[in-house]
Amino acid sequence: MTNTITAPEISTDIKTVMQQSAKAFDEYKRLPGSAKASFLEEIAAQIELKREQLVAIANQESNLPLARLNGELTRTTNQLKLFAEVIREGSWVEAAIDEADGTRTPARPDIRKMLVALGPVVVFGASNFPFAFSTAGGDTASALAAGCSVVIKAHPAHAQTSLLVYEAIQKAIAASGVPEHTVQHVEGKSNETGKALVQHPATAGVGFTGSFAGGKALQAYSNEREKPVPVFAEMSSINPVVFYPAALQSNAAALAQQYAGSITLGMGQFCTNPGLLLAVKGQALDNFLALLSTEIKKVTPQKMLHSGICQAYNKGLHEMLEEKGIDVLAQSEQKPEGLEAYPTLAKVSAATFLDIPHFKEELFGPFSLVIECSDMDELKQVLLSLHGQLTTTAMATQDDLSSYADVLELQKTLAGRIIINAAPTGVEVCAAMVHGGPYPATTDARFTSVGTSAIKRWARPLCFQGFPDALLPPELQQANPLGIVRIFNNKYVAPAK
Amino acid sequence: MTNTITAPEISTDIKTVMQQSAKAFDEYKRLPGSAKASFLEEIAAQIELKREQLVAIANQESNLPLARLNGELTRTTNQLKLFAEVIREGSWVEAAIDEADGTRTPARPDIRKMLVALGPVVVFGASNFPFAFSTAGGDTASALAAGCSVVIKAHPAHAQTSLLVYEAIQKAIAASGVPEHTVQHVEGKSNETGKALVQHPATAGVGFTGSFAGGKALQAYSNEREKPVPVFAEMSSINPVVFYPAALQSNAAALAQQYAGSITLGMGQFCTNPGLLLAVKGQALDNFLALLSTEIKKVTPQKMLHSGICQAYNKGLHEMLEEKGIDVLAQSEQKPEGLEAYPTLAKVSAATFLDIPHFKEELFGPFSLVIECSDMDELKQVLLSLHGQLTTTAMATQDDLSSYADVLELQKTLAGRIIINAAPTGVEVCAAMVHGGPYPATTDARFTSVGTSAIKRWARPLCFQGFPDALLPPELQQANPLGIVRIFNNKYVAPAK
Repeated sequence: MTNTITAPEISTDIKTVMQQSAKAFDEYKRLPGSAKASFLEEIAAQIELKREQLVAIANQESNLPLARLNGELTRTTNQLKLFAEVIREGSWVEAAIDEADGTRTPARPDIRKMLVALGPVVVFGASNFPFAFSTAGGDTASALAAGCSVVIKAHPAHAQTSLLVYEAIQKAIAASGVPEHTVQHVEGKSNETGKALVQHPATAGVGFTGSFAGGKALQAYSNEREKPVPVFAEMSSINPVVFYPAALQSNAAALAQQYAGSITLGMGQFCTNPGLLLAVKGQALDNFLALLSTEIKKVTPQKMLHSGICQAYNKGLHEMLEEKGIDVLAQSEQKPEGLEAYPTLAKVSAATFLDIPHFKEELFGPFSLVIECSDMDELKQVLLSLHGQLTTTAMATQDDLSSYADVLELQKTLAGRIIINAAPTGVEVCAAMVHGGPYPATTDARFTSVGTSAIKRWARPLCFQGFPDALLPPELQQANPLGIVRIFNNKYVAPAK
Repeated sequence: MTNTITAPEISTDIKTVMQQSAKAFDEYKRLPGSAKASFLEEIAAQIELKREQLVAIANQESNLPLARLNGELTRTTNQLKLFAEVIREGSWVEAAIDEADGTRTPARPDIRKMLVALGPVVVFGASNFPFAFSTAGGDTASALAAGCSVVIKAHPAHAQTSLLVYEAIQKAIAASGVPEHTVQHVEGKSNETGKALVQHPATAGVGFTGSFAGGKALQAYSNEREKPVPVFAEMSSINPVVFYPAALQSNAAALAQQYAGSITLGMGQFCTNPGLLLAVKGQALDNFLALLSTEIKKVTPQKMLHSGICQAYNKGLHEMLEEKGIDVLAQSEQKPEGLEAYPTLAKVSAATFLDIPHFKEELFGPFSLVIECSDMDELKQVLLSLHGQLTTTAMATQDDLSSYADVLELQKTLAGRIIINAAPTGVEVCAAMVHGGPYPATTDARFTSVGTSAIKRWARPLCFQGFPDALLPPELQQANPLGIVRIFNNKYVAPAK
């Protein structure tokens, strides 16, 4: 680790930090959407100004390649700009208006509602996306967009990258004139720091992407509070991929190449890594697995994000491969060294899989387990046995999708995103994205942590009854000065813009 | 209690009930919105057919007056019809579409999302609204509208009313051709029944309106599950009303009459009962309290809903009036007998209130506590000390609202609904309503249990990536056959209807 960044003075006094956050929130929340949008854009601009330095330090801290980090930084700034666009437009607040009706008995009062910001949000940086899901990543961007102040708990595995991004945010704060403590940065390796942040009474919400154990602990801290707060933890997913019979028969070589790439992309360190491959046994599967094995053997081991993740992968892989009935199909021919991961493909029968709960657990890294099923009915049993997932994928021909509509229907119940004929790795930042899913993929399947809907995690509806027009927020004023989409007397009204 | 209704055979085997519910859900969720809408309308029609019998039995079981019950039944059927209208229209699913973009590197896939139903929902009937928040009430109607199957846990205080409503639902099930077990009815007085329902693996969500202890227990049951599920418990609120200085000065007589009515309406057995009245001490307050006391004395005690609630009120009132520094200002001149409640108005100083946490707790019944504040700053301290609320009210002149904008701003942080110059009792069923609020008013401030947005409690977003158009639900098909409002490539599009 280099030491080229001089750390600014950091308050480790969580109480002070949270009180400052609450005070900043009181001011920041009242700024118009356009001012918050400009602030997000300024953060993006300040990050761009430090691109070279940021990418270099993140590369040293995370072992991720420069090209990937450059792409991720672009994604991060685009994300900030997209969220800015959404809040400048303004319709995200779900404004609804029911006008007074004096002719009714009893008379109906004037009732209006919109989403308002929750309060100070604590964001835990994720190690596998040092830009896009860390200091100025999706959780921070969406919370700021909603009108919340943010306290970032830096990930210790890229502490200097985090600080440098935070410096960019501080410059944006100064340039935009938003309150000084709108965003704050807390370092610390101990769980106690995280616990204190989650349990401070001023904390109104928590964002986290990481391990199941980590997310579960944060949720438990919140549940221990006198007043629990929403915890959005994106935790654990093995992203089952179903290879339907005709697709496997007709397209084995291309599928093998595509999936060897997806399984080992970024050394498997994606939440959407395809950890489970389901198919029916037979010649087509044997053929596909032979091709996939050849591809896996060719993969060059790369360094993982940090020693903790590498140790966990090595230990988890060892334990997994000791399970009864598991066959190793392929590992990289080049043996891993030091922090490098060992790309591995293994296989079990569906019967064995159904018997041993351990196989359903995430092994974070370039590991994928093939479940060999006797027939599509047994494959359905496997799907039914799985936990909630971020994604599930159907590699299928048109005929497959017609013949096995029931399998596809089952897949829809499993995950937040269902994909046809693509690899699950790769998550678009857009309005229609859902990066979420039933427990334990996340703590709350009703929200997404990627895409513009992520903003709604940090808001609650507030109803204004009998307010004089001038005292209403502009979103709810009769003349609709912001020109947003609203539900007006039960009809959607979208003014021409 | 009469015994005129023959109970149908009731399965007390929770496991069977939940398995049946899961099976019904699998079919029911796939019905088009129009079919679900017709089902809701049929329930409303079947309830109307039994109006006379229902109102008579509910009157015997709940002690609520016939006029009130007739009005509540109308509200219940209107609620079903309004929800039917919303799902027939269809835009509630928040459809969003991002089209594929092959020109981008990497190419962007076609991504679409909408809300889909969660799964079987357990609804606990509320004792204070035997129609509107019980068997076919808001939780059931919204869950069915979302596409969930429902298991109703009947409230033992109006078990026969509940059964009779359930018979109406069964007729609607038969007439509409929805799966037999789309709605089921479970009786039982023990907490174990509720616990077993919440903890069954098939249960996907829980709706509850009742006490803080009850809601907290249900939330804890869910947290104990391997996979926790959303629990929407509307629990505890004392609905603080601030009487601003000029309003108190100018309008004391009308305010006294209005609030005596609101405090004792339905013997205070409303979630939105004004339990806390805040004002600055002085001649204007003394004058108002003298008038209010006169009104309270005139109130005739009425029977409460059931003996449990009456015992809890009597015990709670006794304990409250024993607290240090409390003055009883007025009680009904007519003494209560049997199950009747004792309408009571009391007063404490703000300093005493701030000192004794007990005063912040809900006392369910016709009790209201006046907090006498030294000045508006102390009044703000009282507001800051309060728990989350369903409502908060400002009784204020235009001048008050200008002079004390900071007090109004503070009120906005307290509750799900903020009301100017009306009593908080009375909750409209409409698009803009929020019947919810920060903990402990509810377990989840991000949702409402009254109004059409209540449907969204029972849904989660599902993202479809790379789907052939024909395999998409109609809400997401390119041609928009349902003509709903959608976000299409980041722009709201509302087709002419």
